[in-house]
Amino acid sequence: MRTTVGIIGAGPAGLLLARLLHRSGIDCVVLEARTREYVEHRQRAGMLEQGTVDALREAGAADRLNVEGLVHQGIELRFDRERHHIDFPTLTGGRTVTIYAQTEIVKDLVALQLADGPPLLFEAEALAIEKPDSDTPVVRFLHEGREQTLTCDWVAGCDGFHGICREAVPAAAGRAYAHDYPYSWLGILADVAPSCEELVYARGENGFALHSMRSTRVSRLYLQVPNDTDPDDWPDDRVWDELAARFAVDADWTLRRGPITAKSVTPMRSYVHEPMRHGRLLLAGDAAHIVPPTGAKGLNLAVSDIRVLARAFTELHRSGSEQLLDDYSRVCLSRVWQATRFSYEMTKMLHAQPDGDAFESRLQLARLRRITASRHAAAELAANYTGLPLMI
Amino acid sequence: MRTTVGIIGAGPAGLLLARLLHRSGIDCVVLEARTREYVEHRQRAGMLEQGTVDALREAGAADRLNVEGLVHQGIELRFDRERHHIDFPTLTGGRTVTIYAQTEIVKDLVALQLADGPPLLFEAEALAIEKPDSDTPVVRFLHEGREQTLTCDWVAGCDGFHGICREAVPAAAGRAYAHDYPYSWLGILADVAPSCEELVYARGENGFALHSMRSTRVSRLYLQVPNDTDPDDWPDDRVWDELAARFAVDADWTLRRGPITAKSVTPMRSYVHEPMRHGRLLLAGDAAHIVPPTGAKGLNLAVSDIRVLARAFTELHRSGSEQLLDDYSRVCLSRVWQATRFSYEMTKMLHAQPDGDAFESRLQLARLRRITASRHAAAELAANYTGLPLMI
Repeated sequence: MRTTVGIIGAGPAGLLLARLLHRSGIDCVVLEARTREYVEHRQRAGMLEQGTVDALREAGAADRLNVEGLVHQGIELRFDRERHHIDFPTLTGGRTVTIYAQTEIVKDLVALQLADGPPLLFEAEALAIEKPDSDTPVVRFLHEGREQTLTCDWVAGCDGFHGICREAVPAAAGRAYAHDYPYSWLGILADVAPSCEELVYARGENGFALHSMRSTRVSRLYLQVPNDTDPDDWPDDRVWDELAARFAVDADWTLRRGPITAKSVTPMRSYVHEPMRHGRLLLAGDAAHIVPPTGAKGLNLAVSDIRVLARAFTELHRSGSEQLLDDYSRVCLSRVWQATRFSYEMTKMLHAQPDGDAFESRLQLARLRRITASRHAAAELAANYTGLPLMI
Repeated sequence: MRTTVGIIGAGPAGLLLARLLHRSGIDCVVLEARTREYVEHRQRAGMLEQGTVDALREAGAADRLNVEGLVHQGIELRFDRERHHIDFPTLTGGRTVTIYAQTEIVKDLVALQLADGPPLLFEAEALAIEKPDSDTPVVRFLHEGREQTLTCDWVAGCDGFHGICREAVPAAAGRAYAHDYPYSWLGILADVAPSCEELVYARGENGFALHSMRSTRVSRLYLQVPNDTDPDDWPDDRVWDELAARFAVDADWTLRRGPITAKSVTPMRSYVHEPMRHGRLLLAGDAAHIVPPTGAKGLNLAVSDIRVLARAFTELHRSGSEQLLDDYSRVCLSRVWQATRFSYEMTKMLHAQPDGDAFESRLQLARLRRITASRHAAAELAANYTGLPLMI
């Protein structure tokens, strides 16, 4: 097989790139190791920056998002048994965010892709990217029981943090920056209407909790837990009791409980690979960088990478210029590091220190108090949360 | 001896309190362990917030400050061989800071005190505060070769971090919050005109450097060095070479060198004691809290404590109400924790990590870039640097 852009991975990054290239008349093929069923049901993020919504609209993939997405005007910070609303439109000149689950985005993009192409192969497991620094990199992959090759002009590595694309960059040609956090999130999905209208970020005495939602009928909640926590140690009643304790604020607020339909533990890590390009291999989304979920930047960063990348391929296709592809890594990394900084700061501000450092705990409260006292500090949070511009 | 307010320590906090109480007609006595010569020549800070200047004017102690103080409109951040001016008046609605050395403030206050009282005893070493939670605390002190007592209605503990006043608070009645930093500052005084018009905070590849000044003819410079550095390992040429390397930016800028007249190494620590009152003993300034020097908050916090304390004593004297004294610790600590947070963040943003954590280094650059890219982020820095309001 031969194509212009070989796309490895059918998560939101790979699928969105395929749609945008298709609309620009650029030939591409998407290889996905897993089944359609699997990729359509992975639980991931659900908070979209305005730029992410715009990109999905631009790709013609927003029909359902436009109807079902929940527009949020802000978030709530909860600490010291107080509630503080951070109002995004007031602080940012009108910006908002939209709640729409990543799984739904993937379903929408898969349906479009299967309806009018370009080719999307499920259970097509990429094994290696050969000669990424040549003019014709080759993807070796396993499909329908036999090894095959996809010869490309360019390869887009959209296969996530555990994918093979990043490994195709020789150690001497790149550098990784990483930070592991001393806690994880226990996340649940519950069939119950959310107990709040907007996301609640709570700094409880025993740790962080986040109240999010997938729709008006499905709640998504998270609890800070120690690393290596076994979800089996958290029966449903214990989860609800701990959530209720961490969100506790006053008699006017109660946490609605309902059947828990999914429960899992996720470690927290920051990771950035520099550069995001090696020869004709371009890394995008989680393949290049991951952030802790506090602040919900992962999906949004992947989409902004893809916007930059799609423009660069379109420019090459239209004018023959590789300038935007040459700029790709630098342009993306500038935004990636700002989101990495923001995610780190949100995480550090809200999570209890496992070592019980009382000084750090007081600093957290001082940070939260400052955000509620200073319009500039609140505006900085709102600007970062709703999404910084593509060019920083 | 008997007095209304016994003041322990003749640093800027104790001396300023004595002046303000004297102007309100409140009787007080200042006890200072060291000689006049010693306290007038300790090298300390030199950047005054507007509120600090206002307090010195209110105390009638600003005649020389008004003439010799250098008004600064901003600071410069230097990193990645770039220079960025942070303009305070634009970002804060007109606020500035004033450069005037702490030693000069002490000289001015000592001269006033000796001219028209209240009593100020040098070489009067406080040994213990007895019965601080009674109505008549007693200060035992050594003076002129014999032990004496000062019986007070109130005691103001202004005797610095290593003083005895904080120790008079029983362990069960207070709590300390502390953080030690893994680096120190090597500070020099040099008889040479400053190489810059405003303070330069430089994040060099080998560590932090600060260019400050005491006057138009005396430069004050600092270098980040490892803890336990021996100043003797830093001959003058080595100091100047390293400073020049860390400030290096372009061919248009050179560091002026001159005779070094003082050289010392200072460790960096954050410390807050809560509460700042025990019975009739009130802690102020370094006796209650210290910050690392990045951001120059130590002297300014001491002065803001004293403003709150002087008002509280004046209110008691005028109306008999202890309400403001009851609020003293809470009101001060709110501001203290904001300054502690700011000093911590400035310190962490600018110093090289001794463990060489590359992720942290990238985060520092992202923070600095954000400050130079976002008006809100720059305004937050300017608001904190020029001084938050007394009531937060």
